[in-house]
Amino acid sequence: MTETAPKPRRRGRPRGGSDARERILAAAADEFGAHGYDAATMRAIAARADVDAALVHHYFGTKADLFAASVGMPLRPDRAVPLILAGPRDEVGAGIVRFVLEQMEDPGTRKRAVALLRTSIGNRMATPLLAEFLQRELIGRIAKSLGAPDAELRASLVGSQIAGLLMARYIVKLPALAGASIDDLVARVGPTVQRYLDD
Amino acid sequence: MTETAPKPRRRGRPRGGSDARERILAAAADEFGAHGYDAATMRAIAARADVDAALVHHYFGTKADLFAASVGMPLRPDRAVPLILAGPRDEVGAGIVRFVLEQMEDPGTRKRAVALLRTSIGNRMATPLLAEFLQRELIGRIAKSLGAPDAELRASLVGSQIAGLLMARYIVKLPALAGASIDDLVARVGPTVQRYLDD
Repeated sequence: MTETAPKPRRRGRPRGGSDARERILAAAADEFGAHGYDAATMRAIAARADVDAALVHHYFGTKADLFAASVGMPLRPDRAVPLILAGPRDEVGAGIVRFVLEQMEDPGTRKRAVALLRTSIGNRMATPLLAEFLQRELIGRIAKSLGAPDAELRASLVGSQIAGLLMARYIVKLPALAGASIDDLVARVGPTVQRYLDD
Repeated sequence: MTETAPKPRRRGRPRGGSDARERILAAAADEFGAHGYDAATMRAIAARADVDAALVHHYFGTKADLFAASVGMPLRPDRAVPLILAGPRDEVGAGIVRFVLEQMEDPGTRKRAVALLRTSIGNRMATPLLAEFLQRELIGRIAKSLGAPDAELRASLVGSQIAGLLMARYIVKLPALAGASIDDLVARVGPTVQRYLDD
């Protein structure tokens, strides 16, 4: 894998060596696999890779960022959601559907998203890992911003429709869904997402 | 596998032998796997199993029935849909959601449905097979009964929400969805299905 040099920081680079980035990614995959998303710590990943914890943050940022890198996640729904929720309240449903479908227009993104979905659903060991990530970084954050007592269920229902749409359009490839335009799908599925969040 | 003897018919049983049923199931798996759901024929499956085509119908009924048996399909959505669509038109959304969730209450059904979903999404060879079955026996039939020009897209959107709900509740097990009551989910997801069909 090629890589760009990390930006120098004020306190200098923590020690690592030229293959530190790959060692950290391998350690992250092992640690997340062994303990799950919630229980894995940046400190344990650093120890497993034999580098300073500061170097892990330096290369990869937060635990969510490192997880996304380690599983090759092509979309960062956890990053997009605050931006989408910040828009006009009555357009948030359409905004979420449009964001996801437009991201999937890029062939590289689509290929990696399909591979990740296939693995996460098909592999019994991989499922709980993605589930914990989604619950912590996506469902939990949307629920917090909604604030209602049933906010977590509302956010989970949004997730169920978005995941189902991705699978039906890009994996199962039901002809009518695979051939529909983004505008048409935003008009049809946007109100579903809006209703789950608002009703 | 244990089995009950087939009921005698007026014209007598076509020849088969005591292991004919298992041979037919194995031949069906091979033939569906090699040619897909649409292109596989009952005649070719019979030839592969070295039995009369009449024996295949005698043991398994239609091609849809044989496919369901060969993949261990625990739910027969293609059979349920006509019954659901025959009910009051403004309750069809709630009816579909309730039917699926109530079927999944049975632990054996749930286990086999989860296994089939995992395989169909996770295994690149298995996906097109289930896709063709769903398109032909489910989406196509619902679309025909709806009759609108965009009926196939509407039926596919229903499928996307139902599949997403099953995955989020029974495979990914998002806590809020896994813990929700059937009544609550019917109240929240039923209107989505109704709107996809009617709006």
